[in-house]
Amino acid sequence: MDLLINLDPDSELGLQHQIRQKIVEAILSGIIPAGQRIMSSRKLAKQLNVARNTVVLAYNQLVDEGYLESRERSGLYVNQQILNGRVSYAAEKSKAGNIQERWSSKIKIIGVGHQRHIWPGDWQNHPYPFIDGYFDASLYPVAQWQEASRLAFGGLQARQLHAESDADDAMLVEEIRTKILPRRGINAGHQEILITSGSHHALYLLANLLTDSTTVVSMEDPGDPALRSCLALTHCKIRPQPIDENGMIVDERLDKSQIVYVTPSHQKPTGVTMPLERRKLLLEKVSHRDQILIEDDSESERNYFGNPKPAIQSLDQDDRVIYISALPKAIAPGLGLGFIVASPTLIAEARRLRRLMVGNPPRSNQRTAAFFISLGHYDAFMVRIHKVFSQRWNALRDALNHYLPQSILTLPNQGGTAFWVKCPSGVSVEKLVQNAGKHGILIEPVGDYYSRPEEQDHCDEQACFRMGVTSIDQTAIRDGVEKLAQLIRELSGNQQKTLEQISQTPLSGEQIFNQLAGATLICKTVYGAPCTIELRADGKMLGRAGHADEEYDQGRWWIENDIWYRQWESWAYGEQAGYYITIENEQISWFNQNGRLVDTAIIKLAPNHNSKLV
Amino acid sequence: MDLLINLDPDSELGLQHQIRQKIVEAILSGIIPAGQRIMSSRKLAKQLNVARNTVVLAYNQLVDEGYLESRERSGLYVNQQILNGRVSYAAEKSKAGNIQERWSSKIKIIGVGHQRHIWPGDWQNHPYPFIDGYFDASLYPVAQWQEASRLAFGGLQARQLHAESDADDAMLVEEIRTKILPRRGINAGHQEILITSGSHHALYLLANLLTDSTTVVSMEDPGDPALRSCLALTHCKIRPQPIDENGMIVDERLDKSQIVYVTPSHQKPTGVTMPLERRKLLLEKVSHRDQILIEDDSESERNYFGNPKPAIQSLDQDDRVIYISALPKAIAPGLGLGFIVASPTLIAEARRLRRLMVGNPPRSNQRTAAFFISLGHYDAFMVRIHKVFSQRWNALRDALNHYLPQSILTLPNQGGTAFWVKCPSGVSVEKLVQNAGKHGILIEPVGDYYSRPEEQDHCDEQACFRMGVTSIDQTAIRDGVEKLAQLIRELSGNQQKTLEQISQTPLSGEQIFNQLAGATLICKTVYGAPCTIELRADGKMLGRAGHADEEYDQGRWWIENDIWYRQWESWAYGEQAGYYITIENEQISWFNQNGRLVDTAIIKLAPNHNSKLV
Repeated sequence: MDLLINLDPDSELGLQHQIRQKIVEAILSGIIPAGQRIMSSRKLAKQLNVARNTVVLAYNQLVDEGYLESRERSGLYVNQQILNGRVSYAAEKSKAGNIQERWSSKIKIIGVGHQRHIWPGDWQNHPYPFIDGYFDASLYPVAQWQEASRLAFGGLQARQLHAESDADDAMLVEEIRTKILPRRGINAGHQEILITSGSHHALYLLANLLTDSTTVVSMEDPGDPALRSCLALTHCKIRPQPIDENGMIVDERLDKSQIVYVTPSHQKPTGVTMPLERRKLLLEKVSHRDQILIEDDSESERNYFGNPKPAIQSLDQDDRVIYISALPKAIAPGLGLGFIVASPTLIAEARRLRRLMVGNPPRSNQRTAAFFISLGHYDAFMVRIHKVFSQRWNALRDALNHYLPQSILTLPNQGGTAFWVKCPSGVSVEKLVQNAGKHGILIEPVGDYYSRPEEQDHCDEQACFRMGVTSIDQTAIRDGVEKLAQLIRELSGNQQKTLEQISQTPLSGEQIFNQLAGATLICKTVYGAPCTIELRADGKMLGRAGHADEEYDQGRWWIENDIWYRQWESWAYGEQAGYYITIENEQISWFNQNGRLVDTAIIKLAPNHNSKLV
Repeated sequence: MDLLINLDPDSELGLQHQIRQKIVEAILSGIIPAGQRIMSSRKLAKQLNVARNTVVLAYNQLVDEGYLESRERSGLYVNQQILNGRVSYAAEKSKAGNIQERWSSKIKIIGVGHQRHIWPGDWQNHPYPFIDGYFDASLYPVAQWQEASRLAFGGLQARQLHAESDADDAMLVEEIRTKILPRRGINAGHQEILITSGSHHALYLLANLLTDSTTVVSMEDPGDPALRSCLALTHCKIRPQPIDENGMIVDERLDKSQIVYVTPSHQKPTGVTMPLERRKLLLEKVSHRDQILIEDDSESERNYFGNPKPAIQSLDQDDRVIYISALPKAIAPGLGLGFIVASPTLIAEARRLRRLMVGNPPRSNQRTAAFFISLGHYDAFMVRIHKVFSQRWNALRDALNHYLPQSILTLPNQGGTAFWVKCPSGVSVEKLVQNAGKHGILIEPVGDYYSRPEEQDHCDEQACFRMGVTSIDQTAIRDGVEKLAQLIRELSGNQQKTLEQISQTPLSGEQIFNQLAGATLICKTVYGAPCTIELRADGKMLGRAGHADEEYDQGRWWIENDIWYRQWESWAYGEQAGYYITIENEQISWFNQNGRLVDTAIIKLAPNHNSKLV
């Protein structure tokens, strides 16, 4: 019997649990036949070299459970009873090849929801997972969740009441009603709330309740692929509605739809936020045309730059907005808990459909989440991840600014967890994503988000990829971006000519000094904000960035054998960097030591400048 | 501040937790404004009359979570930060009456899955809940589930791996594969198993994957209403297939279908079991016609009379059987975990559809269930509920035998958790169910199980109700049945004429003795099994029941002023009962003290009988 028990010192399980598992396995699999006498605890303890009491406790538990029975003065035996009610009989399957075809031909829904891009299952083993929406283990509030779970199971019996009905856990509904919805300005009654297994579930329920082949639904483009798949199942018509930096554009293209789906607080997937004015405009429009508005707020947790906009639902006086949200996935692994806020009539039907599908989300989870919220872990958690996310997000922005100048497409103005990065023309996103993956850098092509993915790769303005920060450790961000930039340079190498190749000669040290002393450089940050750099003759350097100069830094510049060096206090990681310089007309360009172009800017000469042109 | 904190001594929560909850509530709701100094722990402890340390611990936790901040030498203050990111804005909803109509007109699926019968939410407060499929709190293995849950959360981080992929928890799949499926003779690979949120979820997935308006599905009649509703959603044609005491009848009526749905091991809802021969016949038939067979085994846990039949799936060599089952609901409250075993091709598509709907069942639950099984709690639990169920089931059978003779329609021969009880003709099931409910007796009308519910109430052979034992305490069963019988007598009172009304005179004491001494009574048990009672002249009484006389009892009979008394040792609860007797031709009838008929039997006179006819 010692053969089958080998204890794993590194296991998360205690010795006693391991011993029990192994013995149960051995009994059920018949390795120890029923009726056989098993080794004395003393002997087994000796063999496994564990405290005897450990084995005794394991044995006792197994006796209580009926796996072992003790016989007067002769020890413990495997109990037949536990093996009753088993049949052992299994026909050999004919592995005929035609079987797969047969099935494919019988399945009505093939490939719906198929994604072109799927993250590797072992993403956590990649050094640079820039995945938006996945969460690294450090974010999970393990201890707090365990506490809530312990409490939830504590009062189990008390809560058998209603355990079979359609009703959701009253405590969770109340917590959502009084602690979560008010954050969004929403004030709802119990009968207006339905708990779902995450926001996907909510979308699926609504798609099935409200759409069929005759329905027209407007949704953002780019937009949530999950919704597009749900709507594909109901064969309704989808009208892609373009977005701008203020989220979904509100215009006459929405007029023909019965349903408008929008993610105003944190647009999926760009993360831009819709201003209050546009929200009001949208609400007017749908009310005027008797349309249904589905407001998906499930990523609002990603916003963290203060003064949030109230949910559209909170502005709705006419009860035509359906509000969807979810508890942050990072609360517990694989926990999906979301909720719908809508008219009681709709909620009642959604509840009925939910019963047919899956029934209520497991009540024990609901109650655990309720305790998690009521003990204050939820709000504390939000504050914490907002801090973490904004740090990571700024780190990514700075890294992109440093290594991939002017590559960011949109800048979510309420904070966010991802950037849309422009892929240099000539570099195929597909190819870049693949190559990056090989180097442990996980970035996301955005094709799946577009209504016509096939086009996006060619259409320049859409040739983007997405980089997120929810899954990557802060310390890995700079490194990852540097490696990615390197990769992009390689892929677009042919374009990036060196100084020699374009047969230009950089300025001499003296020329550099004459041109730059007292000059001002005008450039753009990675996210398109203006940035001016003042180069004083005394070697001091002042930098201002942002539309309101909100960012400021200073540093020094100097020249060593025809190379222009600069070093900021904090910008560019406060590291010194040296470049070759060329100036043509008003454009200054700097090149790295290999003579490859790094960035350009407009140079304004100092008024008192004695121009000796080169 | 003492106002808002009142501790509940009966709460399942400790004092420290209650204090935290209340303070969090007060802060988030603004009752204690941000920046306000809160009462010292000493003062609050005094006020609430709890140990100071309790308050200190609560305060510390709140400081850690950022609700309170301590200021040098001046105490604790409510931290503004925690309140950031809130909007408080909620438009007054116009409660226009037309809103409900508006919604109803926009919802495409109205009332699908509507049940005529719904159990009261507070069923546990009823003294006699004869509900099949609900579970009284005593059945939940609370401690074992808590242990498993503790372990599942213990290694949380370790299991973040894959946490975002479509894959199910590998440990649970393995436990099902190696410990649960073998019980049913099934041997399946990982890629042939999909975890679902209960068996409903499995049915819903399969209905959506395999059926549309062109599909014909054969299902048992009576059968599972949940499936009927799912199929209604896909608009496919349902062919009701009648059942007999061996489950679904296998004949040419199945030929026209593409899919056959069957519950062979424990027919939903009658609980009868299909013999091996019929299973093989069915499998042949579907293979021959290239049909898909969906085998729903999710109630097999209700069988407990040993030698179970192997699942049809285990006999299938041609990979055309889809096997559905579920973990017993009673393992954890509201926990829905089921699984589908089928061809990898189908499983892959089901997995994709599942992602669109709800994603995986929460991984923490999956892992908890996995530990529950691997530690042996699952098999121990099965043994335990089988014991409990069979005791309750026998108790119900005996009670029905005693108070409602010959009322049982079918007798599941593999054990079960419910009986179908015939309603005396003339008594409306609808009316009986309602009246019983008023007396705290919950029984189920079976209309919902039939394809044409409207007919069943009139059609005599279907005028039944259902009584289950999973939810009622053993000790309440007899009482409940007695009260129910009383109710039935009242409802059918008009038919049950008394001796006077039918102007018959019962036999005198002497006549009774002459007729019964040495006679044998031949009757039937409540479930139709033969039963003979031998009346010895010396007052001894011998009873044999069952097709093989498997049941035996003895007792005594005697006569006191024209009333015939009998008392069994164990039958009829070993209680003495006295009856008036009439005999006509070969039929003996006994009447209770009020002169109402109780039961009849055939009487065979002793050979040596000196017949002085009355």
